[in-house]
Amino acid sequence: MNLQDYLAEKCRLIDSAMQEYLPPEDRFPDAIYRAMRYSVLNGGKRLRPVLTLAACEAVGGKDETALPTACALEFIHTFSLIHDDLPALDNDDFRRGRPANHKAFGEATAILAGDGLLAFAFETIAGRTTGVPAETVLAVVRRVASAAGMGGMVVGQVVDMQSEGQKLDAATLEFMHSHKTGALIEAAVLAGGMLGGATEAQLDALSLYGKRVGLAFQIADDILDLEGSQAKTGKTIGGDLRRQKATYPSIYGIQKSKEVASQAVAEAEDALRDFDERAEPLRALARLIIEREA
Amino acid sequence: MNLQDYLAEKCRLIDSAMQEYLPPEDRFPDAIYRAMRYSVLNGGKRLRPVLTLAACEAVGGKDETALPTACALEFIHTFSLIHDDLPALDNDDFRRGRPANHKAFGEATAILAGDGLLAFAFETIAGRTTGVPAETVLAVVRRVASAAGMGGMVVGQVVDMQSEGQKLDAATLEFMHSHKTGALIEAAVLAGGMLGGATEAQLDALSLYGKRVGLAFQIADDILDLEGSQAKTGKTIGGDLRRQKATYPSIYGIQKSKEVASQAVAEAEDALRDFDERAEPLRALARLIIEREA
Repeated sequence: MNLQDYLAEKCRLIDSAMQEYLPPEDRFPDAIYRAMRYSVLNGGKRLRPVLTLAACEAVGGKDETALPTACALEFIHTFSLIHDDLPALDNDDFRRGRPANHKAFGEATAILAGDGLLAFAFETIAGRTTGVPAETVLAVVRRVASAAGMGGMVVGQVVDMQSEGQKLDAATLEFMHSHKTGALIEAAVLAGGMLGGATEAQLDALSLYGKRVGLAFQIADDILDLEGSQAKTGKTIGGDLRRQKATYPSIYGIQKSKEVASQAVAEAEDALRDFDERAEPLRALARLIIEREA
Repeated sequence: MNLQDYLAEKCRLIDSAMQEYLPPEDRFPDAIYRAMRYSVLNGGKRLRPVLTLAACEAVGGKDETALPTACALEFIHTFSLIHDDLPALDNDDFRRGRPANHKAFGEATAILAGDGLLAFAFETIAGRTTGVPAETVLAVVRRVASAAGMGGMVVGQVVDMQSEGQKLDAATLEFMHSHKTGALIEAAVLAGGMLGGATEAQLDALSLYGKRVGLAFQIADDILDLEGSQAKTGKTIGGDLRRQKATYPSIYGIQKSKEVASQAVAEAEDALRDFDERAEPLRALARLIIEREA
């Protein structure tokens, strides 16, 4: 399997589905639809939706079953980026090398575009998923909603905010990241497995895989913020330092952080030891996470 | 049937369920849970959840089947109030006679509390509803998500924002209010019907009832903003005028607006003509809307 070809194919599939699902830009009131499309259709990595499709495939499911949920996860990820960039939160003017949503469309529209994407994610999962029992779709809604809100992102972002300029202990750092980033990544993997018809044992394995991949991803992100190339990441390098954010490197140092990330990737791969060759994309994705440059 | 007793009983039921569902205030990170509870548990009228329970009852369903969805509708209503009050949107410092959420907890926490309540609404519907087929719950999720987002509130708020200081035509005013307020009220009624086991014909009737009640409610709200008592509404009287918001009275005048609202209530009652005495609370609620003082 060639991972780059795999990623290119899945990204095309996901981008074309999101194009189709999102209301057109010429619908009234167009400002909100333009704002949503601006932030969603921006050539992002599509990590979460690709994980959903790959997890579905790993247990023998089909792309089309998981595709609406995959897109919903990208809508939720985009909602969180738009709101995190707001002046009252991280106050970031740039995202992926372009003006942040609130710089391009104004703060009010950005808040509403985020709100709209969050609601639209659940409308998409509930309204577009076919080929699986309604009980399964409902379980996916519940899990994804928890990861987006009180069991994940919202809570993680609160801790992130509160911790600026503070010295965090390792447990609080772990709580923050496992909620802010980890929960949605784990939910993406689990939702793919659920929609693909995974057994309970497979879901346990996917849950562990998702947790480890989420941790490795966050550490890699922290390291890229210190060592990365602004041209490749599209973000200001050193932003975490400037905002005195607690990161893995700030607590463990860069070398130790890299070891923890490698260890997490090894554990993610090991969690899939009983899966057959259909889990190759998931395994390759785990390795890619610590090798990426953006 | 005594409507005041009915309302008091249902409000107790709804408030105690919301108390139970919402995470406790002493959970880490407590700021977000305190902010959510502050705005949810504030003695509001609970119009939307009461409509859900009353619609469920009107078609022979039980309160406990519709209760999680009823609470979810109040979470979504609260999310919208918190975000609408933000400085970037309506910039209201007071809500129901108390400091708005962003005045009490800061803007960042208010944004996140709103986001959290929106996600939590879907977690609650999908995770707590029992006693009906999963297909029905999924249809409720889809409908409520649409009303909260692109088929309703978010889109209506965008038009509201864009129209400040503008002279709106009647069609745009109607679009704005049917999305901003009407869609969630209609969804509240429909969701109650769906969970109570309504027939297609009953759902059509409930949809019409919801649309007419939503319209009457908005006109009554506009009139209260002009003629109401600040002590009773807890809002600054004349706020719409000050912000040059387009309202029904500003286009039609107060007298004609009152006639339109009365007509809408009559049509709402008429939509329920084939329902039996179990629809009495719905009928009484429609009449209450134009008689209320807050």
